[in-house]
Amino acid sequence: MKFKTFNPPVRTLMGPGPTDIHPRVLSAMARPTIGHLDPAFLSMMDEIKAMLRYAFQTKNVLTIPISAPATAGMETCVVNLVEPGDKVIVCVNGVFGLRMKENIERVGGLPILVEDRWGEVVDPDKLEDTIKKHRDARLVTLVQAETSTGVLSDAKTLVEVAHRYDCLTIVDAVTSFGGSPLKVDEWGIDAIFTCSQKCLSCTPGLSPVSLNDRAVEAIKKRRIKIQSWFLDLNLLMGYWGSKTRSYHHTAPINPLYGLHESLVMLHEEGLEKSWARHWHHHHALRSGLEAMGLSFLVKAEARLPQVNVIQVPPGVDEAILRRRLLEEYNLEVGAGLGALAGKVIRIGLMGYGANMKNVMYCLEALEAVLFEMRAPIQTGVAMNAAQSSSIQN
Amino acid sequence: MKFKTFNPPVRTLMGPGPTDIHPRVLSAMARPTIGHLDPAFLSMMDEIKAMLRYAFQTKNVLTIPISAPATAGMETCVVNLVEPGDKVIVCVNGVFGLRMKENIERVGGLPILVEDRWGEVVDPDKLEDTIKKHRDARLVTLVQAETSTGVLSDAKTLVEVAHRYDCLTIVDAVTSFGGSPLKVDEWGIDAIFTCSQKCLSCTPGLSPVSLNDRAVEAIKKRRIKIQSWFLDLNLLMGYWGSKTRSYHHTAPINPLYGLHESLVMLHEEGLEKSWARHWHHHHALRSGLEAMGLSFLVKAEARLPQVNVIQVPPGVDEAILRRRLLEEYNLEVGAGLGALAGKVIRIGLMGYGANMKNVMYCLEALEAVLFEMRAPIQTGVAMNAAQSSSIQN
Repeated sequence: MKFKTFNPPVRTLMGPGPTDIHPRVLSAMARPTIGHLDPAFLSMMDEIKAMLRYAFQTKNVLTIPISAPATAGMETCVVNLVEPGDKVIVCVNGVFGLRMKENIERVGGLPILVEDRWGEVVDPDKLEDTIKKHRDARLVTLVQAETSTGVLSDAKTLVEVAHRYDCLTIVDAVTSFGGSPLKVDEWGIDAIFTCSQKCLSCTPGLSPVSLNDRAVEAIKKRRIKIQSWFLDLNLLMGYWGSKTRSYHHTAPINPLYGLHESLVMLHEEGLEKSWARHWHHHHALRSGLEAMGLSFLVKAEARLPQVNVIQVPPGVDEAILRRRLLEEYNLEVGAGLGALAGKVIRIGLMGYGANMKNVMYCLEALEAVLFEMRAPIQTGVAMNAAQSSSIQN
Repeated sequence: MKFKTFNPPVRTLMGPGPTDIHPRVLSAMARPTIGHLDPAFLSMMDEIKAMLRYAFQTKNVLTIPISAPATAGMETCVVNLVEPGDKVIVCVNGVFGLRMKENIERVGGLPILVEDRWGEVVDPDKLEDTIKKHRDARLVTLVQAETSTGVLSDAKTLVEVAHRYDCLTIVDAVTSFGGSPLKVDEWGIDAIFTCSQKCLSCTPGLSPVSLNDRAVEAIKKRRIKIQSWFLDLNLLMGYWGSKTRSYHHTAPINPLYGLHESLVMLHEEGLEKSWARHWHHHHALRSGLEAMGLSFLVKAEARLPQVNVIQVPPGVDEAILRRRLLEEYNLEVGAGLGALAGKVIRIGLMGYGANMKNVMYCLEALEAVLFEMRAPIQTGVAMNAAQSSSIQN
């Protein structure tokens, strides 16, 4: 067999992730590798921790990137905070709530579900009713931004409810981090995890986590050892958190260069400005989509600006639509997950990709392909009279 | 606070890892990110699997990179193959054997140690004696190349012993993979893990694993669910192994570009030639070190060419020696781990870094610094009469 260098096609990434990466971040990842105990690297690690604290809006000492994707960040929170037999209240309104349930079961925890319809927010009243029925529960988990449905739940209120009943909270902020308001200390979130891609626009493969003193205290009081050696936060803090920097595993050097650069860029822009930019471009995209006659899965007040979940018009094959966008326009949009497969597409506007060029390109490409697929859509932004009449042919 | 772009110093990496990365691999990591379900990416994944099979010398279908460092590769083998209550024979002759023991305990397994002195190979007779005493053991784990001591054990013979008693084998090939002879199918290794750095010279952060049909069969026959969702090989094969490519986690796209390129380069060079190159440069380094009067921890026939563990001369502070090499020569060599801390340095010759320029630079720098530290060493390769006499001053 013959193998050669892989030269990827240049796509526009407007799915639920990964997102377009800024050239500065791509360049950073190509810088010469240095050792994971090199003093220069250790200083860079300190900067990463400081910038993550800014992005999470926290003073938590335990704020580090896990050396694996956000799936492992979720598992980190679960294996460190849940012990066999622990009751955990799990808010589920999409794929990632269900993933949390699965993780809790694998630790021997007992998940109690608070279920809301896919496409709707987590209902704080339902959460409160469930906790009242399970006063022995120690933990509540929730997804702030459900990537599978494009819903932004009210994490602040949900955390308040949990605390009212002395429960710790684990929050999934994978798609909100850097793109939507998130204030870990002000809202009192106890443990949170996110990813390096999406609104940060770094390569996938790292998962920043942050735990407050209450969560750290809970880990110290565990009855049994943490079941994962790789994700044991006590051991990880020996490398990331201590002055001695004891070896645990070899850190992913070049991806961490990328994470550092993406955080520098977030810091330069300012967190509030980044939140506003995501909101602004979501509105521009929404106007265009609505002008085309397309509708959102989620009602306006619950929408996550970063992931726009659009109902596929009747008669349009969703897989063909996505394939044509990819093949003819090098444009990636996402498929529906789970119960939504085949029924929706997910359009991401995240990080570097949340810009006007992407918004306009996506609207034009979508309209052109839908037009050719003879979808029963209204005349829209880029459709002239001649084109409209040809729909009848 | 003010943060700016991190520009790493340009080091020569001759520790136990990470290693110098070839510019082709660095460039690959800076290529534009594409989606983890993009057809172009899926083809690249297939090539990675095929090239990993070549590098492992196996036909195993289940041959994939785990999206995390080799520590997670080890954990993958353990959580998939070990169940609570399982007796596992663990060969320990350094840090990484002990790490395996720790992993097995966290799954609820019962490790039975076969201990050899640090700096010596795993003794096949001791292994056999131990298995005979524990005929209910299902598994044997061993480290082919102990990075902490610079020892290459005879994996082929050890696996034969294990199979004689119907035990499956897990082999740690983190430092041998690509650099020393390793033949997974011919030797009958059941499960093996390695890393993306070291002899492959890619960024740290990925861990190729390979499991044969016997190991896959053992996973299918498990009594209880695998305790890690992230490292569950059944789920991972749904993404890496199936035609449908179901979403599990978002793959670390850019690091995988790097892994692909490093495997292309290994393929271009040829596996046997890479093994020979590592051996050849080890010999060159050895000659120079011996001419300086320095001695190896490990006897000649057990030495791992990739990690040269050198005893620090009496009177020389090992930490100062390493710091001076780093600060004055931008040269990284490794410290001793565990019981060997302060007593040895570890000089890596791996992957792209196994070249004559590095060998000569390392010898010159080491001699110059040791000379200035007035170590009681013999006259050596780069030391002239005047310098020698000044030692007496």
